[in-house]
Amino acid sequence: MPSVPQIREVAIERLDGSTRQAVRDRVVIEAPLQLRARGTPVATIMRTPGHDLELVRGLLHAESVAGGALVQADDDAVEIDVDAAAFAGRGLLSSAACGVCGRVAIADLELRAREVTADTAIARGVLAGLPDALRAAQAVFDDTGGLHGAGLATVAGTLVAAREDVGRHNAVDKLVGWALGAGIAPAGHVLVLSGRLGYELVQKAIMLGVPIVAAVSAPSSLAIELAERFNVALVGFVRGSRANVYAHAWRIH
Amino acid sequence: MPSVPQIREVAIERLDGSTRQAVRDRVVIEAPLQLRARGTPVATIMRTPGHDLELVRGLLHAESVAGGALVQADDDAVEIDVDAAAFAGRGLLSSAACGVCGRVAIADLELRAREVTADTAIARGVLAGLPDALRAAQAVFDDTGGLHGAGLATVAGTLVAAREDVGRHNAVDKLVGWALGAGIAPAGHVLVLSGRLGYELVQKAIMLGVPIVAAVSAPSSLAIELAERFNVALVGFVRGSRANVYAHAWRIH
Repeated sequence: MPSVPQIREVAIERLDGSTRQAVRDRVVIEAPLQLRARGTPVATIMRTPGHDLELVRGLLHAESVAGGALVQADDDAVEIDVDAAAFAGRGLLSSAACGVCGRVAIADLELRAREVTADTAIARGVLAGLPDALRAAQAVFDDTGGLHGAGLATVAGTLVAAREDVGRHNAVDKLVGWALGAGIAPAGHVLVLSGRLGYELVQKAIMLGVPIVAAVSAPSSLAIELAERFNVALVGFVRGSRANVYAHAWRIH
Repeated sequence: MPSVPQIREVAIERLDGSTRQAVRDRVVIEAPLQLRARGTPVATIMRTPGHDLELVRGLLHAESVAGGALVQADDDAVEIDVDAAAFAGRGLLSSAACGVCGRVAIADLELRAREVTADTAIARGVLAGLPDALRAAQAVFDDTGGLHGAGLATVAGTLVAAREDVGRHNAVDKLVGWALGAGIAPAGHVLVLSGRLGYELVQKAIMLGVPIVAAVSAPSSLAIELAERFNVALVGFVRGSRANVYAHAWRIH
């Protein structure tokens, strides 16, 4: 059992039918780990803290990078004894770990994202129907059990587009690509997801300018932090008349 | 509805209690899409075919790369009207789409992977117990609903290590990093996964030399192809006494 925290307690609003309750919930921590080759940052891995040296050792093995000595520099960094040039032009490390951001600095991600200023809100009854609407749209293709779904719905509850992919990030990228070409106003829409809510998915919603993100499963700590910071309502575990609101609950009424 | 196939029929063996039946199953297609900037390959995205231009448009938007004109060059490639230099040293595209391989050539991945030569096999009754063993190991940490699990078990059914992470690739990398340091013989082990079976996870198993990969959910087409090629048994939907064997069913007896 790792000694570093892997779970964080957060304050949420739990919706159940017509009730609304402020409670504490536990979410999994998602945080950056910087990989440095002889001091030079070469990659940033988004991961749950703990077993960091094993993570990097496994990652280097999968990428066929000869590892050399690994040292945990601090809680957020691992030092590796190879030249940074070993990573040049590869972009490999960012690909191997799902949920990775390939950038060296997290700050860069934050700089590119803009706060969603619209005061858009949605009724909880409308929200409750969105996962089923997405599943109905997916049902056409997905009898394989292997596809992630992403949909855009108006705050009135109309699903305007849905996309599927073996990769959840791809499903959202396809949807965003559609939205950019379709001339819709993202600020009036909700992003609905079939799976879990990681950091990158929330970032993609923010980049598009969508003020509400709702999913059937759990969010990560970093997804919540981003949503909180950029004025986006983040709703997880949308199941029947229940839902957990992790950020900007004022957008759900 | 995209005109390109997104689902493929494959021949599998369906195990149910003591029965074993050769049937057809449908799996989601996972295939590479090459992104070229004025002819120069800059990234390869693993995705389900269809809506490829939207996928790339969305991806470029998320990565703040000014897109210019996009053209579908053929079924496996999208041309974009920017200089390849716009992508230099970023490795961003490989990070944004989950399941991406950042390499320009898929062939490179295949070259690095070695066939698993051991004739390791596992009894179906032992296999059936592995998901529960993994869940029991995960239960210590995971009351968040947000963690992916990966475990290594002997073919006798002993779970020797389990790791969790918000990213499923990270969970496997941590496990592989542990295995490399622990001095175990991977050829006598099974990789057990809590989720779906994408291409990269199977690749990581092959790189370690594990001959059997079992998961609770569905595999992708490319995961099956890799397992088939590198002599790895691929088992999906391991649920109670049922399981679907997608490759090298002779390893399950």
